[in-house]
Parts: sequence; C-alpha cells; structure tokens
Amino acid sequence: MRLGVCYYPEQWPQDMWADDAARMAELGISHVRIAEFAWALMEPDPGRYDWAWLDLAIETLAAAGLKIILGTPTATPPKWLVDAHPDILSVGEDGRARGFGSRRHYSFSSETYRAECARIVTAMGERYGHHPAVVAWQIDNEFGCHDTTLSYGADAAARFRRWLATRYASVEALNRAWGTVFWSQIYRSFDEIQPPNLTVTEANPSHCLDYNRFASDEVVSFNRRQVDLLRCLSPGRDIVHNFMGFYTEFDHFAVGRDLDVATWDSYPLGFLEMFGGSNADKLRYLRQGHPDISGFHHDLYRACGRGRWWVMEQQPGPVNWATYNPAPLPGMVRAWTWEAFAHGAELVSYFRWRQAPFAQEQMHAGLNRPDNVLDQGGLEALRVAQELKTLGDLAPCRRSKVALVFSYEADWLTKIQPHGRGFRALFLAFETYSALRRAGLDVDMVAPDGDMAGYRLIMVPTLLVLSDEVVARLAGSGAVVVCGPRTGSRTPEGHIPANLGPGPLQAHLAAKVVRVESLRPGADPKLVLDGQTYDAKLWREDLETCLPSRAIFEDGKPAWVADGRWHYLATWPGPELMDQVVAHTAAQAGLAITTLPEGVRIRDRDNIRFAINFAPEARPAPAPEGVQLLLGTRNLAPGDVVAWRID
Amino acid sequence: MRLGVCYYPEQWPQDMWADDAARMAELGISHVRIAEFAWALMEPDPGRYDWAWLDLAIETLAAAGLKIILGTPTATPPKWLVDAHPDILSVGEDGRARGFGSRRHYSFSSETYRAECARIVTAMGERYGHHPAVVAWQIDNEFGCHDTTLSYGADAAARFRRWLATRYASVEALNRAWGTVFWSQIYRSFDEIQPPNLTVTEANPSHCLDYNRFASDEVVSFNRRQVDLLRCLSPGRDIVHNFMGFYTEFDHFAVGRDLDVATWDSYPLGFLEMFGGSNADKLRYLRQGHPDISGFHHDLYRACGRGRWWVMEQQPGPVNWATYNPAPLPGMVRAWTWEAFAHGAELVSYFRWRQAPFAQEQMHAGLNRPDNVLDQGGLEALRVAQELKTLGDLAPCRRSKVALVFSYEADWLTKIQPHGRGFRALFLAFETYSALRRAGLDVDMVAPDGDMAGYRLIMVPTLLVLSDEVVARLAGSGAVVVCGPRTGSRTPEGHIPANLGPGPLQAHLAAKVVRVESLRPGADPKLVLDGQTYDAKLWREDLETCLPSRAIFEDGKPAWVADGRWHYLATWPGPELMDQVVAHTAAQAGLAITTLPEGVRIRDRDNIRFAINFAPEARPAPAPEGVQLLLGTRNLAPGDVVAWRID
Amino acid sequence: MRLGVCYYPEQWPQDMWADDAARMAELGISHVRIAEFAWALMEPDPGRYDWAWLDLAIETLAAAGLKIILGTPTATPPKWLVDAHPDILSVGEDGRARGFGSRRHYSFSSETYRAECARIVTAMGERYGHHPAVVAWQIDNEFGCHDTTLSYGADAAARFRRWLATRYASVEALNRAWGTVFWSQIYRSFDEIQPPNLTVTEANPSHCLDYNRFASDEVVSFNRRQVDLLRCLSPGRDIVHNFMGFYTEFDHFAVGRDLDVATWDSYPLGFLEMFGGSNADKLRYLRQGHPDISGFHHDLYRACGRGRWWVMEQQPGPVNWATYNPAPLPGMVRAWTWEAFAHGAELVSYFRWRQAPFAQEQMHAGLNRPDNVLDQGGLEALRVAQELKTLGDLAPCRRSKVALVFSYEADWLTKIQPHGRGFRALFLAFETYSALRRAGLDVDMVAPDGDMAGYRLIMVPTLLVLSDEVVARLAGSGAVVVCGPRTGSRTPEGHIPANLGPGPLQAHLAAKVVRVESLRPGADPKLVLDGQTYDAKLWREDLETCLPSRAIFEDGKPAWVADGRWHYLATWPGPELMDQVVAHTAAQAGLAITTLPEGVRIRDRDNIRFAINFAPEARPAPAPEGVQLLLGTRNLAPGDVVAWRID
Repeated sequence: MRLGVCYYPEQWPQDMWADDAARMAELGISHVRIAEFAWALMEPDPGRYDWAWLDLAIETLAAAGLKIILGTPTATPPKWLVDAHPDILSVGEDGRARGFGSRRHYSFSSETYRAECARIVTAMGERYGHHPAVVAWQIDNEFGCHDTTLSYGADAAARFRRWLATRYASVEALNRAWGTVFWSQIYRSFDEIQPPNLTVTEANPSHCLDYNRFASDEVVSFNRRQVDLLRCLSPGRDIVHNFMGFYTEFDHFAVGRDLDVATWDSYPLGFLEMFGGSNADKLRYLRQGHPDISGFHHDLYRACGRGRWWVMEQQPGPVNWATYNPAPLPGMVRAWTWEAFAHGAELVSYFRWRQAPFAQEQMHAGLNRPDNVLDQGGLEALRVAQELKTLGDLAPCRRSKVALVFSYEADWLTKIQPHGRGFRALFLAFETYSALRRAGLDVDMVAPDGDMAGYRLIMVPTLLVLSDEVVARLAGSGAVVVCGPRTGSRTPEGHIPANLGPGPLQAHLAAKVVRVESLRPGADPKLVLDGQTYDAKLWREDLETCLPSRAIFEDGKPAWVADGRWHYLATWPGPELMDQVVAHTAAQAGLAITTLPEGVRIRDRDNIRFAINFAPEARPAPAPEGVQLLLGTRNLAPGDVVAWRID
Repeated sequence: MRLGVCYYPEQWPQDMWADDAARMAELGISHVRIAEFAWALMEPDPGRYDWAWLDLAIETLAAAGLKIILGTPTATPPKWLVDAHPDILSVGEDGRARGFGSRRHYSFSSETYRAECARIVTAMGERYGHHPAVVAWQIDNEFGCHDTTLSYGADAAARFRRWLATRYASVEALNRAWGTVFWSQIYRSFDEIQPPNLTVTEANPSHCLDYNRFASDEVVSFNRRQVDLLRCLSPGRDIVHNFMGFYTEFDHFAVGRDLDVATWDSYPLGFLEMFGGSNADKLRYLRQGHPDISGFHHDLYRACGRGRWWVMEQQPGPVNWATYNPAPLPGMVRAWTWEAFAHGAELVSYFRWRQAPFAQEQMHAGLNRPDNVLDQGGLEALRVAQELKTLGDLAPCRRSKVALVFSYEADWLTKIQPHGRGFRALFLAFETYSALRRAGLDVDMVAPDGDMAGYRLIMVPTLLVLSDEVVARLAGSGAVVVCGPRTGSRTPEGHIPANLGPGPLQAHLAAKVVRVESLRPGADPKLVLDGQTYDAKLWREDLETCLPSRAIFEDGKPAWVADGRWHYLATWPGPELMDQVVAHTAAQAGLAITTLPEGVRIRDRDNIRFAINFAPEARPAPAPEGVQLLLGTRNLAPGDVVAWRID
Repeated sequence: MRLGVCYYPEQWPQDMWADDAARMAELGISHVRIAEFAWALMEPDPGRYDWAWLDLAIETLAAAGLKIILGTPTATPPKWLVDAHPDILSVGEDGRARGFGSRRHYSFSSETYRAECARIVTAMGERYGHHPAVVAWQIDNEFGCHDTTLSYGADAAARFRRWLATRYASVEALNRAWGTVFWSQIYRSFDEIQPPNLTVTEANPSHCLDYNRFASDEVVSFNRRQVDLLRCLSPGRDIVHNFMGFYTEFDHFAVGRDLDVATWDSYPLGFLEMFGGSNADKLRYLRQGHPDISGFHHDLYRACGRGRWWVMEQQPGPVNWATYNPAPLPGMVRAWTWEAFAHGAELVSYFRWRQAPFAQEQMHAGLNRPDNVLDQGGLEALRVAQELKTLGDLAPCRRSKVALVFSYEADWLTKIQPHGRGFRALFLAFETYSALRRAGLDVDMVAPDGDMAGYRLIMVPTLLVLSDEVVARLAGSGAVVVCGPRTGSRTPEGHIPANLGPGPLQAHLAAKVVRVESLRPGADPKLVLDGQTYDAKLWREDLETCLPSRAIFEDGKPAWVADGRWHYLATWPGPELMDQVVAHTAAQAGLAITTLPEGVRIRDRDNIRFAINFAPEARPAPAPEGVQLLLGTRNLAPGDVVAWRID
C-alpha cells in the first residue's frame, strides 16, 4: 500500500527537479512514473539518442529515495518518425489516416512501427534495465485511447488475412463461419478479404467479430514484444500497463496475462460525466463520482492482474477532458485512494505531480498548482500517507464469495449487433455489479475462461458465446449461477446455436429462447415477482420451458426461471428488480447481504472492512456497535471513510 | 389471392430442401421467391457458372407444386467482380466509394456493371426462361435501399452530362433553367458540369432537381435493360420488382411502367419505428404498426402496377434492422395479410421461410425458427391459407371515388429546399391519406400524369410543379379538387412561376401566394373554421384573393379558400383540421363518410368489405347490423379482421 | 442617413433596368450595390472581359441619380477558373477540397487566387474607378461565410510555416511557446509543421490558436491587396466590406483598419433562429428578433469602422437560409432601419431589390415580389424614406460612457478549449451587452488594443490573453473596470500565467484564481448578493484573496470581488445577476440607469433619443412627459419606434 505520482521532468526546468523529488518524498510518495511520452526527447533526431536529461532525472529521483516506474514512450512516435514512415499511422473507420499532432497516431499492425518500438525499448532497457531505482516498466500508455484499437489500413488488412488463414485454414471454412452465402459475400481466397469498414450498410457481423478479435490480438502481440524485450533487459522488475475505464475494444484479460501487474487510470468524475449514468446520477454524484464506477474497474483490473493491481493515474482534482469538469468534493481524493486500497491496490499513483501550464492538458489539475503550491489533491494525498502509517500494511484481498463473469467479446458482440439501441454487455455487467455492491457483497470479476471454483454465487450478466467448457466450469463450481439475457445466444462463429439460446446452458436449465424483441423507452417490459410489479428495460425474450417461473411478464409469460441452482433472466432488470435477483439468489447461496445506506459502499481487505460514503449527505457508518474504528467516525460525512477490523 | 414465401435454398443443406418444399405446400403456400442474392453461387469464378444447385432447387420446389419467382442477383455483385472492376462501386455524397461487404455496392450509371448484369441475366434467362415452374422474375432487389439511388462518381457525372445535353440541347438553355447567373455559377459547356455534391454551402436547387431526375432515369433504364432481356428469354412470365416503404428517391411510377406487377416489401413495425410518426404513435402502435402505413403503400404500389401488385416480403415477426425491434401482436401477421388482400394484392409473400442463424439478418424472424419449428408467423400464414379457401377468390379492387395525387418529384423538391425543417411532400401526402382513411374512404393513388377521370374527390396534398396539362386533367375530371400548400409553386425548371403560386391553378382559383413563411414548433399557425380553432403546422402562406375564406388564420387572413369545386389550403393542417377538410370536401363531392372507431380501417375489394382493428383495445366491428360476417366477429379484438359482403 | 438596396441587374432582362432604377429613386433609395457575384459575367471566358452589360447597368442607375457601390466579385470564382486552377479551392478540416457549385470555394492562402483577384479587381478598377456614380467599393462578400476562414490545404500549410517562422524566428522558440514537450510533439524545423487538423484527439491548443491567428491574418492580407489596388485606381471612394452576424473566425477590427467604412449584413430573424437564444426567446421574438442582436452588431461594427458604418444588407422579409423562416412583424423592417440609424449608421441598404425566382435564394424576400409588386419590406422602406425627410440628417453617435471590450482572440480560445460545453467568449460578451442595454445604457465596443480613455465604466466580459499594456490602458482610463471569468487566464502563447489568473490584473486586484471548474446544467452555481440568491451558470473559479466579497457562492467562497474600481467575477452570471452587476458598477461609475419596459431599447444619436419596442405586446414609450415626439406615439406598439430630442 504505497503512494505514487506521475511526473514529467522534461516539462520543467532542471533546477526544479531536486526540490520536486524532495517534496514528493516528504509527502509520503514512494513511486514515480516518468518518461512515457518522451520519445522525442530520448531520440531528438533519428538514431541520435539523448539520455543525459533522463539520466539526471532518474538520479535526482533515486537520490530522494524514490522508486521509478519507467514508461516506454511508444504512445507518441515523434514527428520525424511519422514523416519518415507515414505508413505507421492508424487509419480510421472512414478510411482516412489519423495524423500527427496529438497522440496514439500509430497502427498496432504496422510492422515498421513494431520494429521502431523494439529499437527504442531496447535502447531504454539497455540503459536503465539494471538501474536499482527502476522497479517497474509501464508499456506504452492507455492502449486504445481515443478509439485507436481498430485500424483499417493496408497493414491491418494484410495481417488480418494472415490471422484469418491461421484461424480458418481454408477459405471455405471462413465462408461457413461467416455465413457469406448470405448476400453473395463469398470469398474465393483470403486475399480478397478487407476490413469490415466502408460498406454500404452494416457489414457481416461475424466479419466484424473476427476483426475485433484480430485487433485485440494485435494489441496483445504489440504489448508482448515490449514485455519480452524488457524481461531480458531488466529482469526482476514489474512490467505493467495502464488500462482505462469503460473501455473494452481489446481483451484486457489477454493483455494482462503478459503483465506482472494490471494498472488503470481512475478518473471518477470524468468517467461519470462522459460515460456513467443518467443525468440524475450525474447531478447527484457530481463531485464524488458514482459509487460503483471505481469499484467496478478496481475489481476488473484486480482480475486482469491476477490479484496484483495498481491505480496508475488517480484523478487529483478537476480534469480537462470531460464535457463538464467539476472539482471533486473536498476529501474525495482521499476517499478514492482508500477505496482503491480497500479493493486490494498495491499502489495508488496520482496524475500528476504539478498541473502543466501549457498544451492539451493545461486545464488538468495536479497535486500541485501550476505555480507549485500544493493543491487540494496534494493535501489529501499527504493525509492518506499519514493514515497509511497508522494503519500499517495489509495483505491482499481475500477471494470473494461472489463472482461476476465479464467478457470483452460479449461487449463486442452487443456493439456489433445491439438489436435494440443501448444494449451493451458492459452496462448490463455494470448494473449487475452495482446491485451486488448495494447489497454489501464483495465481488471478484472472472473472465469466461477464468477459475470459477469455490464461489457461492456466480453472476453471468450476459455471455453471448457460451462454450460447453464454460458451462462445465460453472457446473463444477457448485455455485448458484444467474445468467442474464442473450447468454448462450451465439456460437463462437457468431451464429445462433442449433438448439437456440441459451445454447449449452439448456443442459442444466430446461428453457429455450424462441423469440427475442427489443423495446423502445416507454414500452419497457414490466414483470411481476411475489405479487409486486417491477420495471425491466429494452429487452424481452420468450422462453419455451416447463420450469416454474420465479417472475413473470405482465402477460404471464416466464421472465425469470430457475432450475435448481441455475437461473435465467429473460430481460434486462431495472435496479429494484436487480436488487431482488441478488437478494433471492444470495439467500439461495447462503450469503448474508447487508442493506447499506444509499450511497455507501463497503469492501474488505485482509481483515479490515472499509466503508465510504459517496452520497452528498451524511450517513451512519455501517460498522457494528462497539467496534473500534481505525479510520473515521460513526457519522460518515459525504466523501468520508471509515475502517474497522472484521476478524 | 395467393400466399408466397422468400426462400434461400443456398443457405441450407440440400437434404432439407425437399422437406422445406413439402412443408411450404402443406402450409398453403403456392409461390416461392429464390435466388435474388445468389450471384456468387451462380458464377463462383469469373465466367464459370454453376447451375447445379439452382437446377436442383428449382426441381425440388417444382416437384412440390410450387411456382417460382426467380430473382436476378444484381443487387449483390460478387467480390471478384468488384475487384476486377472497382469502377462499378457507387460513390457517396461525400465523394468516397462505397465498398464490398454488404449489398447494393454498385452504381446505376456504371456501364461496366450494366454489361455484367446483362450477361448474368442472359445466362439465367437462357437456362430457366422456359422452365414451366418459373412464373415470374424479380429484377434486382429493393432499388435504392441504403440510399443508393444517387451516386456521385465519374460514371454518373459523365452520363449526367449526356442527360443534360439531351434535355437542354444548349448550355445556354441549361444556364437559364438553373439560373446560374446567380453566384457566377454559369457553365460554358456541358463538360464543365459536376454532380451537386461537395459544395461549400447548398448547391443550386435546379441542379439538384435535375440530378435527382437523372438518377431516377438511371434506375429506370437499369431496370429496363433486364426487363427487355427477360421479355425475350422468358416470354409470358410476370416481370416484377420489389419496392420499399417511405422511399422516394426515384420515380416508382416510371419504373412500374416497365413491369407487369409492382411489388413491395411491407415491414409495418420496422417502418413505424424508423420512419412513421410521433413517439406516441410508436408506443401506441408498437406491435400493430400505424393503421395507415401499409395501406398507403398498398394503394401507392397498386397505382405503380396499374392495378396489379403483390407484397413480395411481408414481415413475419420481429425484424433486425430497426432501432428497436418489437414482436408483432399475435394475430397481426394474419391481419397484415388480409389488409393486403383487401387492398387488392394478388399475392402476399412472407420474408422469409426460416430465420437464418448467421450473417446480417440473423435476428430477422421467419415463418420458421432457426431450429425449423413453425413460428408464430407461420401459424398465422397457415390460418390465412385456410380462410382463403373458405372465402374464395376475389376480383381486383374497383376504382375508388377518391384519388390522391402523389408526386415523387414533389418530394425531391421539398427535400432539396424544405424551407422549414420537416416539410416533406411525402409526409403531407401520408397525413392527407390518413385523414381520408379515418373517414372510411377508399383511395386510389394517381401519378401527376395519371388518369384522373371519374373521381369525385381529388386530393393534391402538394404538387410543386403543376403543369397546365395536369390542371387541365384535374379540370376535366369534374371532381372536387383540394390542393395543399406549395402546389403550383414551381415551374418545371424549379423557378417560382411568373404569376407566383399556385401558378396555373390561378386559372380556376383566383388566389395568389404573395408570401411564404415557415414556423418552428410552438409557433405553429392556428386557424378558425366555423368558429372552432384548429392547429396547423410549420407552414403559412399569405394569399391575395377576393375569394371568401372557408377558414381563416387567427389574424383573419385566408387559410382555406375555395372557388367552386377548387380548394386551396395555405397551411399544413393538423389531424383534426385535415378531418374537417375531408368532411367538407367529401360532402361537396357527394361522398358519404364513415366515422370509424379509432384505430379501425375499412377497405373494399370486389364485393367484400374488410375491417381491421389496429388499436391496442377491442373495437366494435363497423359492420351493418344483421349482415353475415365472412370472417371474424362483431367484437373486433386488437389485430383482428372482419369481412362482410357489401352488394 | 441614407437608404440603399442590393441589386442584381444581370439576373433580370435589360428592359427592366430603367424602370427598376426609376422606382428605386422614387422609393427614396440613394445607393445601389451591384456586381459582387458577377465575375462569370464580367469575364465569361479566361481573359475575355465583357463590360457591356455592366457599363449599361451603371449608366442606367446613374441616370436615375443613384450612387453605386461596386462589389469585387471574388467571392465567386467562375467554373473555368476553378477548372484551370483546382488548387485555389479551400480544404475542409476533414482534408477534402470544397468544390464549385455554390460560393466561397477558394482558399485565402492560394497565391494563384490572390493573383487572379488582383487581375479582375484591376480590370474593374481601371474601367470604373473614376466613374462619378461609383462612390464606394465593396471588397468580396461576407468573408468567412460557410466556415471558410480556415482552410487546411497545402497552400495554407506552406504560408502557415512562413508565418510561424516570422513570429518565432527559431523552431525552439515555437516548441517553447506551444509546449510541444508535452506528448512528444516537438518539431525539428518549421517544415515539419502541419495545420492542426486530422489529429487522433484534440490538437495542441497553442497550435490551434496560432492557426486561427494565421488564418485571420490571411483574411487581412487578402482584403488589403484589393484595397491597395482600388485606392490607386479609384481614389476618393469609400472602400468597405460587408461583415456578418455572430461570426468571429477572423479579427474584424484588423480587417476594419484597412477599410473606410465597416458594413454588415443584418438578418435579425435568421440570426435569432440559427444562433441567438433559447427556444423561449425564439418563440417570443419570432417576428421581431431578439432586442439586442442587431444592436450588438451595430455597435461592434461601428467600432470596427472607427465610427463609420453601414448596414449593407438589411432583412426585408422572410429569408431562405434559417431552419425556420418566419416573416417579420409588419413594421419591423422599418424598426430595424431606425434602429440602425439610431446606432449611427450612415446607410441602411436592403437585400434585395426584388426576390429572384430561381437558384439558392429564390425563397429570400426582397423589397419587391418576384412578380415586381412592391412587397411589405418595400412599403416600409418607403415610409422610412419619408420620415427621414421630416427628421433631417443627424450627426454621428457621440462617444458613450460605457465601453465593452470585445476580443476575437478570446472567442477563438474559448472555442479551442471551452473546458465546459457552451463557454464562448462571444456569448458572454453578448449577455453582458444585453444587461447594459436593458439598463438603458449606450455602449461602445472596444478592441483590446483600442482607445479606453474617457469611459466611466468598462466591461471586460472575458479577455483570456490580458497584456500588461491592456491593463495599463484600463488603469489609465480611470473607469470602473469589471472583468469576467477567465480574464487574464492565458499568456499570449496560450499558457496559464506564472502567477495564475487573472494574470497581470493582480497588480490592481489582489485575487488569484487557484481552481477552475465547469458545471453541467442543473449543477449551475448559485450565489448570494445582499441576501438574495442568484443563478449563475457553467463556470466557477476559486479565488484566493483577502478582498471583501461583493457576492459569495452558496458555500461562502468569493464570487464577485472588488478592489476599488476594479471588479472580478468568478462565474458566468445569469441575467438577473448581470443586471445587479450593471446596477452596482454603473452607480459606482456615477452613471444613471433607466429601468426600461421589457423588450424596449433606447439609443441616442446626436441629440435624438430613439426607443423601439421589440416585445410582442404594446409598451409605454419611455419618453419624458411633455417632450415632443419626433416619431411615433406614447403607446409603443410591437415593432414601433419613437424618437424625441434630448438636449
């Protein structure tokens, strides 16, 4: 449980560096990330390296006792590299090259660029790989940011064809898998195949699905090449990448497998403004962030890092990039930091040390103001550092009793064919997660191919491609399993299964989806459970089943059926219904749930339970009477934290 | 009165075909449409034809007694053809080629593609033209779908210049017609002229109008070439095309003149979701479709087919392509089928036999589920087949007493210069049609150059270009004529007439439009008729006239004037006002109107009157007391149909 | 105080010209603008001039005693010129050339086009420069209309590099100024620099700012070249340009410095529909226009013309180009004309003499209908002409006591980095102006580098780049100075100042902006002034200050602070708060304010005060009892005008 900070020495006069380092150490910061956008400074001209500044920066930081996370600078190829090799540029879905002038202007499929990356990473690794202060490497920065995972240029097309040849061996197999017999889309050879953009109307969904799989694999192999180099050149260091929020274009589990630690960049207010929730939520949680946005990602990236994870960039004040950029509630930077530790973070690193007075992010706050006065975020970091000393180090999170199966591929499929506007696997997973958390349950995220053993309750919000193997693991877990709509509705090729949805789940739950419909707002389905009517939304499936219904639609047809410990939901439940689903199935799984005050969340790490109040009003701390509070007080102010020992 | 189905044998194992054919026949289906997207199967490699599968399919279907409608596969040129001739691709308004990967990726102006089409159609015609089971040919599929009528490539530009040279003979005449003296747009030769896209601000409206006329003519000549070939190669067969709903980019009357039968693809729920009506309508008619969407098109295509028309694709369950895709109310597939027969359809053909488990339309229902179980639509088709046997065959529709003049060109003009957002001739025609139908009137659609003799009431919702010849035919009809706003507001060149609007109508109705304004929602005009205030919308004209006003605007100026049997409306009436217009003018025409229960529509065919309830509540059947019902009961459930004899 | 009209003789038969001229003169029109879109008629083929028609037009108008404003036709290069030199086309932000077919399809940076313009202007100047009837020249037409100020082609890129080289001398200086160390944007030479379009995410804001400055300078030099030619060829004539409303892409003050008279095109209803205000405003002022839209621009262009200004195009009836195009209230064309004279216009010229029956603007009203009958606008112009005779000529406007500092650059900066959606310096200036006008104050607009001496109250709604020199002039004025949010928040390079905002203002007002946030609608800041709560919007700054607060935010932090005669607002005030700010600071400045009836505005010219009622209801005229009215009556009908002598 350490604090870190992102620092850009190259953006400041060298005579400030020593003071910066000293002040970081004083504040309680132990780790500093540097260099991830500095290629143009490391190699000012083609082949001419300038390490002097970086040597000095590293020495200055190390001299203050700071540990260094060194970023590879491949998110920002310099202008001279782009000019020498314009083919490295990524190409948008509109077929146009995406140019220099901001960042991430490269294609993952450019072999030229991969070679250039290997060159600069090798040079960095050779120079700094054994430096004692360098404790970790961050590969690139925020893979995929600004919609850059999928590129549509000639390089991508060529590698896509090779990828397809490997996957399908014969073009006949591909034609079958994609169903190209439809609309005369038949290919005679892999060479005829293009990326699925610039079509007259929607492209073949299996074509799109494979293109997304391919693009995801490209990120994996792009990352792995740097990882492999650094494992040799800098042994013993953690290799990490900083993922993002609400971003699913590649399979983060797959990238995570090549890393030592998964990290992510947590901007609760930016994510709320841009992605997360209704206008009412955006007003209610304006300065705190929605109670589950950070937690959802904390748990997701804990899974991606197989237990080891960091916040690499923690929002320290207002950001610059959302439509509106409010300031956090005083105390909230501290609360977010404790929230991350409660979910098992090893390190929380703030972005950034000092607000830059220039360039694209000049309106992004730092721990220090541009005039180098410690800002609100800095004061709160200091407070956390002091509290950390009191609390001592905690062991990692224990395994939860509840798992939520999250599939990147499921989200690609619902983006490719939402069938009803707004159906995204990501948001259904988020709303399911939220209900679990409102019930006071800790959640482990699990990939479809992850370990499911030992859980008591497994939520599968939606998993379109459901293999026999996943069903077997779900069965083997012994858990109560709750599957949401569209689960098992697709084969790996993207077809409707021969036995219809939920496909192989029918082996355990005797229900068949015989019709699917999507419904506009205002025509949302309603359903009846225990005599009460609840709202669902957007989606309704007709089930052919002899199973008794837990809940029915208003017309009497089954909406929620169960077969022993297997449950299936034929709609997208609203929050109250989702709470009921959690309550009933947790009870069946023998799990106690906690009715938390609105806006409060609890989370256990080691033998400590933390509670945070995200509501804009004070709440009673949900701590047992008599227990000694290790942090905070029983009157939990907005944005405040309490902690107590649980065993 | 026959039932048909669209079938894709190439998408299923051959060992299913015989069973499919047998089950179709059992269901009461007599006609099967096949092959319209199968070019890549007919000609897997350039010049190498493979007819074996199609021979077998035809034989199998014929052996079950089914009649075959054979589609020419030109809506989907194969990949090899696109690769060999990339110039066949259509070009979007943005100047970019629209690529392979879905369908309709060709330009109507490509002479290369026209030759290729002639080749494949000739090959098909030679092979199957005299097959006894082949009773009809469908040319291509849904001309213009996905905004493909207008293309902007070099081929179109070259042919447009030739088209202009033919139309105008001299470039000076063109300059006069377009008014190119405005903004120095003057051309020195036809060679200087480009399509009207990629301009800095709006292009010249006469240029746009001619481009739309040209594009429409391109569709006509593209279609005619295939028709001409098949008339030779397959004499005696009906030649048809399947038109779409709410689609006006080319003149369907003109294409229809080369066909034996006009057919269209009727998706009431998809059209409601995507195109037809307010949010309130979309909720109220969610599962039934708006009561007039199908009828409007049935009557329009009956006109395009000069009395002979089919539904080629009837929605059988949820579709895949709308923003939201609800399921029809049980019974609704039957009701739509009867509605089409009531409007005079010879054939109603369902799309499609069985839901495909793959590709772009995998979420589109069929008569059968993907697992080959008869679905709800299939059950309803079976019921119609049985009812048809009871009812016996009916003669075609009789001529109506009411005509509605519909002009594709008028719609182009209002798209080019709406002047107020939302003014579309199409929707004004639809709302006028709807009022006639609410009054229980059967309607014939008539093209501006169509036969107007014998009607008692002719509605001209808007006809911007009003020629002396049309006025003469309106006059000659002896009918009460009701002209809506903007009628006669343009010359054939697209100019304001020298005597202002309504141009030549002033010979019969002494009123002149001296000012025009469009008004945002909330500032809609109100008008007073018989002491009552009614809503109009969007549009208001100031009339200079000595005629007495039937209705006035709130400021006392004339809103509805009449000169004997000639009426002119200076605004876009709201529904209640439109009902009043219909009531008054029908009375003047000596027509009795029927106050139908909300959501119910009636329509006569031969000597039978049908009534359908589109409302979500039950309604009393509008049948005379004592009359014997041939179908249904007097309590008309939602989605139910009744029929009785009227003479 | 003269009336003019825009006339297109080339669009009408020559046999109408003499009658047109005679009728203009009869109506009281003295000035006629012609020829500004007629290049293709002056030079029908490359190098072949045809002056005959223009000679005749000029002679015909002159013979009727009309004075001629001759337009250079460079807004509409002919087709042959575009075909010969396609490089003259402008290039959109999307990288695509913007083609022929409408107007303004040229790049200001094309040296080819600049040479062609010099050629045609020289030819015109040589032929007509000494014609006695030619009293003025209009350069081009509406620079920048249809977003054409910024172009992104190779010509612009090359000239931008030269502009940068001049500004920065060394690329190192540029790298510092732009902060290119951020995200490895460092340039090694000016040759590497591109326009800031087509980037993956937002481009560097200093890069964007310089590109906007460059583009503005391009307009200045483009205009100047024509001005310089005409000063030689046509000495003694006024040289003018017609600017637009709510358009800020170039610095109009800078262009104005090369002109004799600033003119603008005033379309109050079009501007209201397209740009100006809430839906409620758009309904309330539907037929009158918002009370401050015209006045704001009148005062702005009076400043751009250093006192001399005209309305070159006055809306005469419904226009064609807004989303909805209502007709003006009867009387409103007269009221707008008087409003312009009240604000000091020398000339009000109507657009256009007669509505054209063809081409893009065929739905745009004129003084005459297309059938050559005088229209409502014509009747009102006639009335003004008669009233002008009664009233006699008035001296120009006197210097106001209130100045509003308006900065084009500030608006570029808030467009580049709004930070919160909707923050535009333009609209903050407009709302500030509106409050001053509601208080009955006449306003002078002043450029940041303008003369500030002698004002009692200077409003600086926002001036992001605040130089020491501007602060010195504000200080030297002795005025009460009111600075709005973001003032002084940027250095000329676009950086945050080293001492933070409001930068150099801190020398006079001891407050520092230590945090900035933007807030979505619904989370708008509220503040308390004299115990009352007021709404602000969108923006909030945290001030570090020991100054007492005039108003505080609801949490007690300072929202409005003052230090003697210097004021600073830390938010965007709502209208009621803006009224309070005006009331308090006007009182401090010793200015009396007038509580005007809602919708009424007053404005003094010479010794006459005019009042106009923009409300849709009648209002009492705000004239002192007993004073003699020179125009109008004491019951001020909607759209009516009164005037009386004030000294």
